[in-house]
Amino acid sequence: MERIDDLQLNGLKIIQNKELFCFGTDAVLLADFAKIAAKERVVDLGTGTGILLFLLYGRQPDANYFGIEIQKELYELAQRSILLNKLADHVEVLQGDIAHAAEYFGMQNDVVVSNPPYEKDGEGLARKAESHRIARKEVLVDLNGVCKAASRLLKTGGRFYMIHKACRLTDIFDEMRRNRMEPKQLRLVQAKRESEPKYVLVCGIKDAKSHLRHCPPLVMQEEDGSESPEVRRIYNRPE
Amino acid sequence: MERIDDLQLNGLKIIQNKELFCFGTDAVLLADFAKIAAKERVVDLGTGTGILLFLLYGRQPDANYFGIEIQKELYELAQRSILLNKLADHVEVLQGDIAHAAEYFGMQNDVVVSNPPYEKDGEGLARKAESHRIARKEVLVDLNGVCKAASRLLKTGGRFYMIHKACRLTDIFDEMRRNRMEPKQLRLVQAKRESEPKYVLVCGIKDAKSHLRHCPPLVMQEEDGSESPEVRRIYNRPE
Repeated sequence: MERIDDLQLNGLKIIQNKELFCFGTDAVLLADFAKIAAKERVVDLGTGTGILLFLLYGRQPDANYFGIEIQKELYELAQRSILLNKLADHVEVLQGDIAHAAEYFGMQNDVVVSNPPYEKDGEGLARKAESHRIARKEVLVDLNGVCKAASRLLKTGGRFYMIHKACRLTDIFDEMRRNRMEPKQLRLVQAKRESEPKYVLVCGIKDAKSHLRHCPPLVMQEEDGSESPEVRRIYNRPE
Repeated sequence: MERIDDLQLNGLKIIQNKELFCFGTDAVLLADFAKIAAKERVVDLGTGTGILLFLLYGRQPDANYFGIEIQKELYELAQRSILLNKLADHVEVLQGDIAHAAEYFGMQNDVVVSNPPYEKDGEGLARKAESHRIARKEVLVDLNGVCKAASRLLKTGGRFYMIHKACRLTDIFDEMRRNRMEPKQLRLVQAKRESEPKYVLVCGIKDAKSHLRHCPPLVMQEEDGSESPEVRRIYNRPE
């Protein structure tokens, strides 16, 4: 069943379909972590319904956004959201395999973002639909494929922002480095102050020197379970 | 000038020399992070005055401890501390290069620990003495050398515990993996709750599967600058 959600961000809306795949907190956190400057070219790998592009556009409208999504139904939802938001001049999404992204978008992009499938296929809970499975498991693309595609798209000094599972941090660093993107910033995402982090936000810079900066952890909830001030800021909640 | 310090741990003492190299907080934190079971064989790479071995022995006396130190003056201090503490049956230290450690201690050890030089030579503040420089900078041994030596010493499933600078985390993961030690536990060490972590405690397991567990950060100070409860526990401070 389709639904249109208001993103609470400059009037932007998104079309989603519960039977396919709906965006989650991770896209919102990644959009906050990725810093986009004016005039930059930004490519989103595995763009789904386009959520990350809309959130980034909402924060920085003066940049050029591109996305690629392999699943036809999700790609079509993204296209319709672009039209609904009248963003065809700012956001362009193609249907295709991220392995070919550089053929479409060139190799001189400033930023690549990705909220890729997290789990090796066969791991974790079984998902209902094939669309969920492709979006959440490494069926069609794995971490190596995402990093390889990101590196080809980036110019020297270009940034790759990704959110992924915390338990795979070694794999993430490994694949980024193999693909000439040096991890420069790490931010752990955890439920509460004392919780084990569940996700990591990582920024790699193409052909940069080795030096990792640890950002303060992103704590999602107060001790009583209510939203933390930072989450309220990220979601643009009223004060 | 030599001095004898009481380790506040089962009456153990250590001989140090200000003109050479005195142990710091990092050895104490690493000794707390490394978990040694009864009867295990434990090798310390770059043992200095022997501080880490004494602290580990204080926590787990029913294990076999070995150390190797390349600097003659430090090795001699370690030897004298062993005699002073009457530990010759439990702790053995050799003078030599860690690259040859497996020739002395074999390849079936349960645990390797190391508090290696942190900085590339030429980086950071200049140190007074050559002994400091060797102990703190990668003059005679670098991260790759430490990981290579550790891996050769370990049996399958053996653990490598190391403390190092947080900004080098990517290098640490990279070198551990290159040397068949999979990072399994990570603990960040930071001054205060909101501070950027300065050190990392890492445990790698030889030939293990990829899955990193993030431990809660080790926070050194309360907001008012006093020692945190965990630091008081680690240092055995009276309640």
